[in-house]
Amino acid sequence: MRPSQRQADELRALRIERNFTRHAEGSVLIRMGDTHVLCNASVEESVPPFLRGKGQGWVTAEYGMLPRSTHTRTAREAAKGKQTGRTQEIQRLIGRSLRAVVDLKALGERQITLDCDVLQADGGTRCASITGAWIALYDACEKLVAAGKIAENPVRDHVAAISVGIYRGVPVLDLDYPEDSDCETDMNVVMTGSGGIVEIQGTAEGEPFTRAQMEQLVDLAAAGIGRLVGAQRAARE
Amino acid sequence: MRPSQRQADELRALRIERNFTRHAEGSVLIRMGDTHVLCNASVEESVPPFLRGKGQGWVTAEYGMLPRSTHTRTAREAAKGKQTGRTQEIQRLIGRSLRAVVDLKALGERQITLDCDVLQADGGTRCASITGAWIALYDACEKLVAAGKIAENPVRDHVAAISVGIYRGVPVLDLDYPEDSDCETDMNVVMTGSGGIVEIQGTAEGEPFTRAQMEQLVDLAAAGIGRLVGAQRAARE
Amino acid sequence: MRPSQRQADELRALRIERNFTRHAEGSVLIRMGDTHVLCNASVEESVPPFLRGKGQGWVTAEYGMLPRSTHTRTAREAAKGKQTGRTQEIQRLIGRSLRAVVDLKALGERQITLDCDVLQADGGTRCASITGAWIALYDACEKLVAAGKIAENPVRDHVAAISVGIYRGVPVLDLDYPEDSDCETDMNVVMTGSGGIVEIQGTAEGEPFTRAQMEQLVDLAAAGIGRLVGAQRAARE
Amino acid sequence: MRPSQRQADELRALRIERNFTRHAEGSVLIRMGDTHVLCNASVEESVPPFLRGKGQGWVTAEYGMLPRSTHTRTAREAAKGKQTGRTQEIQRLIGRSLRAVVDLKALGERQITLDCDVLQADGGTRCASITGAWIALYDACEKLVAAGKIAENPVRDHVAAISVGIYRGVPVLDLDYPEDSDCETDMNVVMTGSGGIVEIQGTAEGEPFTRAQMEQLVDLAAAGIGRLVGAQRAARE
Amino acid sequence: MRPSQRQADELRALRIERNFTRHAEGSVLIRMGDTHVLCNASVEESVPPFLRGKGQGWVTAEYGMLPRSTHTRTAREAAKGKQTGRTQEIQRLIGRSLRAVVDLKALGERQITLDCDVLQADGGTRCASITGAWIALYDACEKLVAAGKIAENPVRDHVAAISVGIYRGVPVLDLDYPEDSDCETDMNVVMTGSGGIVEIQGTAEGEPFTRAQMEQLVDLAAAGIGRLVGAQRAARE
Amino acid sequence: MRPSQRQADELRALRIERNFTRHAEGSVLIRMGDTHVLCNASVEESVPPFLRGKGQGWVTAEYGMLPRSTHTRTAREAAKGKQTGRTQEIQRLIGRSLRAVVDLKALGERQITLDCDVLQADGGTRCASITGAWIALYDACEKLVAAGKIAENPVRDHVAAISVGIYRGVPVLDLDYPEDSDCETDMNVVMTGSGGIVEIQGTAEGEPFTRAQMEQLVDLAAAGIGRLVGAQRAARE
Repeated sequence: MRPSQRQADELRALRIERNFTRHAEGSVLIRMGDTHVLCNASVEESVPPFLRGKGQGWVTAEYGMLPRSTHTRTAREAAKGKQTGRTQEIQRLIGRSLRAVVDLKALGERQITLDCDVLQADGGTRCASITGAWIALYDACEKLVAAGKIAENPVRDHVAAISVGIYRGVPVLDLDYPEDSDCETDMNVVMTGSGGIVEIQGTAEGEPFTRAQMEQLVDLAAAGIGRLVGAQRAARE
Repeated sequence: MRPSQRQADELRALRIERNFTRHAEGSVLIRMGDTHVLCNASVEESVPPFLRGKGQGWVTAEYGMLPRSTHTRTAREAAKGKQTGRTQEIQRLIGRSLRAVVDLKALGERQITLDCDVLQADGGTRCASITGAWIALYDACEKLVAAGKIAENPVRDHVAAISVGIYRGVPVLDLDYPEDSDCETDMNVVMTGSGGIVEIQGTAEGEPFTRAQMEQLVDLAAAGIGRLVGAQRAARE
Repeated sequence: MRPSQRQADELRALRIERNFTRHAEGSVLIRMGDTHVLCNASVEESVPPFLRGKGQGWVTAEYGMLPRSTHTRTAREAAKGKQTGRTQEIQRLIGRSLRAVVDLKALGERQITLDCDVLQADGGTRCASITGAWIALYDACEKLVAAGKIAENPVRDHVAAISVGIYRGVPVLDLDYPEDSDCETDMNVVMTGSGGIVEIQGTAEGEPFTRAQMEQLVDLAAAGIGRLVGAQRAARE
Repeated sequence: MRPSQRQADELRALRIERNFTRHAEGSVLIRMGDTHVLCNASVEESVPPFLRGKGQGWVTAEYGMLPRSTHTRTAREAAKGKQTGRTQEIQRLIGRSLRAVVDLKALGERQITLDCDVLQADGGTRCASITGAWIALYDACEKLVAAGKIAENPVRDHVAAISVGIYRGVPVLDLDYPEDSDCETDMNVVMTGSGGIVEIQGTAEGEPFTRAQMEQLVDLAAAGIGRLVGAQRAARE
Repeated sequence: MRPSQRQADELRALRIERNFTRHAEGSVLIRMGDTHVLCNASVEESVPPFLRGKGQGWVTAEYGMLPRSTHTRTAREAAKGKQTGRTQEIQRLIGRSLRAVVDLKALGERQITLDCDVLQADGGTRCASITGAWIALYDACEKLVAAGKIAENPVRDHVAAISVGIYRGVPVLDLDYPEDSDCETDMNVVMTGSGGIVEIQGTAEGEPFTRAQMEQLVDLAAAGIGRLVGAQRAARE
Repeated sequence: MRPSQRQADELRALRIERNFTRHAEGSVLIRMGDTHVLCNASVEESVPPFLRGKGQGWVTAEYGMLPRSTHTRTAREAAKGKQTGRTQEIQRLIGRSLRAVVDLKALGERQITLDCDVLQADGGTRCASITGAWIALYDACEKLVAAGKIAENPVRDHVAAISVGIYRGVPVLDLDYPEDSDCETDMNVVMTGSGGIVEIQGTAEGEPFTRAQMEQLVDLAAAGIGRLVGAQRAARE
């Protein structure tokens, strides 16, 4: 029995609010249960130095948690003067996941930065960030098309992410914080709308997991991501 | 004529949403027109080293802007590895303003940190932070009272803040970004519910201002703060 | 009765020593009682990136305290690896105050940096910095005129600053450290030679202050600044 | 055809040199082809603050690359003043992987730090670090047993890691740098001696990968890790 | 012919002003020609962690240059967020030199920090710092004796420092900046009042120097230090 | 009697291994007894900003210690976020020493960086770094000649370094760690193949040393360096 009373393969309630802030070219507040992430896409008409003159664009991400998004207050990274290893790991993952579905040449020599800021955390913030950031990115590209800067939207497919894990011996979908902090195995899976795997990261928190368990988890994740992609489609309409 | 078509003494639309996030002991989303600040109060059962064993508490604040709260993206302070002078100036102001109305002895040996994070900026973020943080602080103290940790709420009075300025020769109330970036004089005033002045900071952006202009600005601010205090009262009910 | 036996409206003994060091284009050691600040002006023939090609100059300031300028030793900011919020607040104030009286277009595409380093502190260091830096700035501009780089001195008016406060219920001028650390209200006022207000920053340290008290403090400050401007004039002769 | 002429399922030449330096409690130079990593284990008789008094030990890791371990010189992290996100990601992975096979309670209240410093890099440095660090960790624990500080070696199983990937459409084992920088999919797998999965991290560098490809890669990795564990056993004799 | 017209073995004009600031336990402004260094001694009634409970004291130093002590403005180390290698090298040298003549056990469990801040630089700042800091240190210890905290002054001997060098083929004493930036060999020598060598640092800036040149330089330095020690004695009377 | 049973004028066993790593243009593992330093030379086809367009090259050095090169683990500088004063002092010394024997004009507009990383420390790491780095530098220059980029090797002479000291009253050559941490005087001498002195740094750790002792130490060092230069010659053949 899950603490939230959900079924093993049940996602948390998902709400997607577009245009949450007004300055960003794409702005999405995604809520997966009590995990709320604000995903803002910013378009800049230049690329980082390593790409200059190469005729392609770039998509990158930054991630942050508001100090009191967590159960007890977490020190502000800006005040400490550096980002933790966890923050850097997450923002690299978000950037890679999004780039997997973008035609960077079609984007042209510009950069889109996705800022994923967690307003409230209850587990699964990196997955919610990817799922929400995809919509913000898509919206920002639509504006570039509408402004005549690019001929067509360079986002070639959906991408979404979900966590799965083994909680008290049972494979479950979309871990919330109580499950996440008490599970045996934790896995994050990033997949495209057409079912390709972009990223898989599984970690045994206690006992190593078996190959069979791995297969169950990936099955569960694939099903969940299918539903998230459906929600992304619905949100764009 | 103001860019927003407001009257010279007209505040922007004010909306206050309490309990915006669920982990913080006080959580307020304050919106003054297009300036939106999330103010979270966190209670910690200890005080900073310089106060240990002195039988009193502490109230402090931190301030941040989401990178895309601004018209064009601002670099993330956590990524740059330090807070700007502006950020530090603002968070010191918020902390001082709130401490002015708190009986720190009555608070007991605990610290309340107010995190003021700007989700969307359109001028006046420091003032909105103070006005909103006061409510979050009050709510957090109410919880301490309800939990029996303190006998009565140590917040002794309201405190609120507003900006005023001379825009194209006319004293105006509650500057928005287009006015703020184009005004001759800019003043932030912090006052209590009973009309005492806690802080006044006036700056000539171009020409120095006269004593008479200073008086007009303070009058305007006092009227505006009266209305903000009314809104704080209404929000608590 | 003030700890220093001064009258309520009495300034501390003021001494201004020009050309204190020999490399700086302007170099002033200002002593207000036991507060001693070395103000050095450095001219650089370039402007910061945000002003390049705009046909104007820039005036900026940096502030520091020698570790043992204070009653007990303060940690060296260079050793800690960062400047405190207070330092940044003060150096921003000095820069703004000086720019208020400089015709930046007449200065041409060059930058003047005012380094205000406190050799000995006894309250009022930011005000002494502004008053002394103005002279160093003026002297540096005179050298530019003498060298034929600019046609006339772009410093259009004097600027000076003084602190005032309510100490044991009485408004007093030019707080020294014992008063500053024990006063109810503290205000710094920056005014021009022609009496315009450039900056006013009043803070209630304990009880909020009333509008009437505010007026008294500004009156007191205006009188004091008049005398400081006189001293600046005298020092230049 | 692989650039190195290896078979698809062929590991690079593996050499393990124990006691490479003399101060560390465990010191292993592991060479996988041209990737050379020095893994030093240091025992400290205390634990980090979050574990004090909990009756258990800790195992952690730090990772670094000598500036000229790479084809062209990489800036020294100590000189830049911070570790990259990649470094932090890798050292967190090494620490987690080793902890998965250590009985931390049996280790007692002490910490073992594994420093993995890359002397020469040719792809697969994180995997070589894990495989080599395990031996250094085991050796350090043997010394604790020999010194009578613990009753038995708390390392309960082997752990080793290998990279696999899809290179020009073919799943291959143990990528070297030319393959790593040109492959379609890259996966790092960490497994125990008894075949449990500790960590799996697969990333599509270009096209997403299919479920079938994922299975092939995990099969290949499992076979390779079996051989690495054999080499660890042999090295200890 | 030296740029300053001095004889080869001639020191610059030396002026020593004690009690230059009033808060420090010892405060000396030393001027060697145009090199002016303010040396402040601060006594703290505790020692650094590595000495706690060992029944001895510590003497350490910090060094800094005001930004416009130099011919052209040097960036402020506090603003850059770190001290240069040169600064650290110098402050370590000052500390070592002073400790060589202090009986740390007789000092008791307290630390004296010597802050050497260069107000104006014209070569030889590290040597002037040592020579001046010795007096500040001595004065601070005298106050400890006067206060009855220690029985006798733990400073057992004088220590002073001078630079020597080979300038246009001639060994010269007490290099000023024009000589320092154009000499072939530069040497700093630190000696005690009784003629013992505490530190010798010689560097060939261009051509290596010979053993015979080394001897000449040390002779010259010894003579100069004898005169500096005489000046220290005189200043204390 | 020395702890190592060596004669007073006996060097530790010296082993020099060229081409230790394969990417660096020069790569030398130097072992002086239990002190092992990896010296890698990297050639970059550009010079630092202060030398651009001046028609000359640059030689610089960086120094680091692996965390467990020392008897007990030393914190990693990259993790602490800054290099110690000692590290900076050493890398400046290495760079200066090497530049003394290089014709920078003949090197052309390129920079060679010598990374000296201590794998195992037992005293004398800075001297071993200089002696080993010289070979790596020479080898890197040979490659530039072989590649036709420069006409002849710009390294004009050998340079090597050794420590000497007074240990229990006796001048001894090539201090190891037990001697280094317990000697009265410690001196590092850097000399060229033709016997010129490049750098001499002598420090009294306890009692000041006499002029006669200084002479004995320099004699001892000169003899030792002669043997090191012989070993450098032998290694190149």
